[in-house]
Amino acid sequence: MISVAVLGYGTVGSGVVEVIEGNNALIAQRIHKNIHVKYILDLRDFPGDPFEEKIVHDVNIILDDPEISVVCEVMGGVGAAYQFSKSALERGKSVCTSNKELVAAHGTELLQIAKEHGCYYLFEASVGGGIPLIRPLVRSLAAEKIESIVGILNGTTNYILTKMDREGAQLETVLKEAQELGYAERNPEADVQGHDACRKICILSNLMTGHFVDSAEVPTEGIMNISAEDFALANVAGYTIRLLGVSRVEEGGRLSVYVAPHLVPQDHILAGVSDVFNGIMVTGNMVGDTMYYGKGAGKLPTASAVVSDVIDAVLSEGSEIPGGWDSEKVELWPLSETKSNFLLRVDKSLLGEMEKAFPDGSIITVSGMEQQAGYLTGCVKTGDLEQALDGWKENVHGVLRILA
Amino acid sequence: MISVAVLGYGTVGSGVVEVIEGNNALIAQRIHKNIHVKYILDLRDFPGDPFEEKIVHDVNIILDDPEISVVCEVMGGVGAAYQFSKSALERGKSVCTSNKELVAAHGTELLQIAKEHGCYYLFEASVGGGIPLIRPLVRSLAAEKIESIVGILNGTTNYILTKMDREGAQLETVLKEAQELGYAERNPEADVQGHDACRKICILSNLMTGHFVDSAEVPTEGIMNISAEDFALANVAGYTIRLLGVSRVEEGGRLSVYVAPHLVPQDHILAGVSDVFNGIMVTGNMVGDTMYYGKGAGKLPTASAVVSDVIDAVLSEGSEIPGGWDSEKVELWPLSETKSNFLLRVDKSLLGEMEKAFPDGSIITVSGMEQQAGYLTGCVKTGDLEQALDGWKENVHGVLRILA
Repeated sequence: MISVAVLGYGTVGSGVVEVIEGNNALIAQRIHKNIHVKYILDLRDFPGDPFEEKIVHDVNIILDDPEISVVCEVMGGVGAAYQFSKSALERGKSVCTSNKELVAAHGTELLQIAKEHGCYYLFEASVGGGIPLIRPLVRSLAAEKIESIVGILNGTTNYILTKMDREGAQLETVLKEAQELGYAERNPEADVQGHDACRKICILSNLMTGHFVDSAEVPTEGIMNISAEDFALANVAGYTIRLLGVSRVEEGGRLSVYVAPHLVPQDHILAGVSDVFNGIMVTGNMVGDTMYYGKGAGKLPTASAVVSDVIDAVLSEGSEIPGGWDSEKVELWPLSETKSNFLLRVDKSLLGEMEKAFPDGSIITVSGMEQQAGYLTGCVKTGDLEQALDGWKENVHGVLRILA
Repeated sequence: MISVAVLGYGTVGSGVVEVIEGNNALIAQRIHKNIHVKYILDLRDFPGDPFEEKIVHDVNIILDDPEISVVCEVMGGVGAAYQFSKSALERGKSVCTSNKELVAAHGTELLQIAKEHGCYYLFEASVGGGIPLIRPLVRSLAAEKIESIVGILNGTTNYILTKMDREGAQLETVLKEAQELGYAERNPEADVQGHDACRKICILSNLMTGHFVDSAEVPTEGIMNISAEDFALANVAGYTIRLLGVSRVEEGGRLSVYVAPHLVPQDHILAGVSDVFNGIMVTGNMVGDTMYYGKGAGKLPTASAVVSDVIDAVLSEGSEIPGGWDSEKVELWPLSETKSNFLLRVDKSLLGEMEKAFPDGSIITVSGMEQQAGYLTGCVKTGDLEQALDGWKENVHGVLRILA
């Protein structure tokens, strides 16, 4: 009998309890071990809840109980969650978490503590929600030199972009609808400004390199500047628009990491990732392109990923689980040095200048769009593009990278 | 130092050696163990080959060497491959294989032998080539009740169908081209008649149920009857056509397993799986839909999957790797009892009869198609459909299931 404690009885926490108890017999049959939830830590009481008697308010009850070998940290935040995770690991209890903020901020230290105390710090649920992603990356692609990871990592923004594309609607309208439906938070900054996607691409970059990528150094652009006109131009040129987290080994072996909206070819597998779904493409030097798709958020998908880590911790006891990174900071390749094709949305009066600046480019027009047109630059260095556009800020209304 | 033997120095075998030796330093850095190839078993000599001195002709050299803890069986076939795998497992050497034929036919016994001798029989490469699929299924979705697996499991037929769709071409033309390009074999029966996909969906069904699904009992329909006219009708109705292996828990808990070409909605994530790629959708009761995409065949992708199993065997030593099945045979739900929507391609003279037989249906016409039309039946039981069509065989030219 494996006794587990769940820290936080919110949405994901109640999901973890539901998965462990709801699929209990099935899990036992598969792994020949019985897993049950012994404690649920929460400050609140839950009178009438079927698991009411498991609620505790003092984390020390959990930390001091030698029966508890695995702790699920699904509280969120980097305060108490950090303290409790650290304490649990120091006592040799494995910690499984969905807390991407904590993993991105303190994962390096927590992984080190886990190693020193012969237990595991696991975070499958922190990226891509229910999508098996981290385990395939570190276990199945363990023989691969990973060349790039390109992912739709945020469901809220993907829902908004998909709806804008289908309905020709403006962002403000769709965002408001998404908030009313509960797909976007009232304070949607972390999502729409790309910070959530940034944390996730950093975690994946850490796993990819074995070192630490500081999210503060990752250029991050959200979707707030995307308009119905950008979609109109993109569609005519054969693209849709998706917010992508990108981590790529550039010429010379340096890593570039950034978050930005991209034009994605309509027949690209990532263009088929719609609504609240996430899709992450991982490219290895032997296997080529692979892609992982599923619900990137939500109570049960996220809980399922947390429980998969619990099972991994239980089954792997005494052996090594690959994956992790050290504290050496990765020196990133500057975004200005990366090359891309771009779609510019500019005043028609500027097209002559654009053709001079980017002679390999081509013009995109949309019927009914009177004042503006699109200009496909061809492949240019980001820094050169910025310099070229410097004098025309008022006439340039959109700058979008194209996924190669 | 972990010493590995490779059985068979063909395409996949040379790929395995290339992955282990080419990514050697990287693997060592990740798993803190050095893996090298000590022997390569082949009947042929390879004068001038960089690994010439590792070639042996007698399997007993490998079996008798206590240094060899893992064997990669990439010979193919169910004769010597079966004998050698069995002998290796009986001596406690783990076997990692890409041999789907052997896994489908003798996996039950080989898994049992591995268990009895404290080693592993692993076969990530047997389904979906380089796509991490089996490990996510048994490890990451270990807490899930799997409700269905629906997959594009054969790259050759997917290449043919994609090309037919894009070019409006007939199957014979595309198949001939594919053979010339080496994408299809000279004897393409195993692919185009669906037998290859059948073996793979059986392996996945075994893992899904924990019991044995006999491929001989799985209704298997290939793509030889698909025509340019079927694509024309499908496109008008908003679909493409893909060959799918399907394994689904039906009402009452019985499992239906079959292989057949399906209409797939153009905005479905599986419709984006084109050319030689494979894509497998796994649906769990907690996580919902997840999908795995990548190259389903080819030297290096397949080899990469074999080596990922080698790494798993090395790291998991002494602990349990989940996944496997026993010899209890799964009693399949008869295909005649399964319900689907269908697209029929019929002589226009039959449309009146179709409307009587399937009053919830609707007619699809394609301009330029004079004699025939499409009829969407609505949801019907397969057995009822077959009965209804029984009298009109000569007027019914195509019967295609629609992916729900």
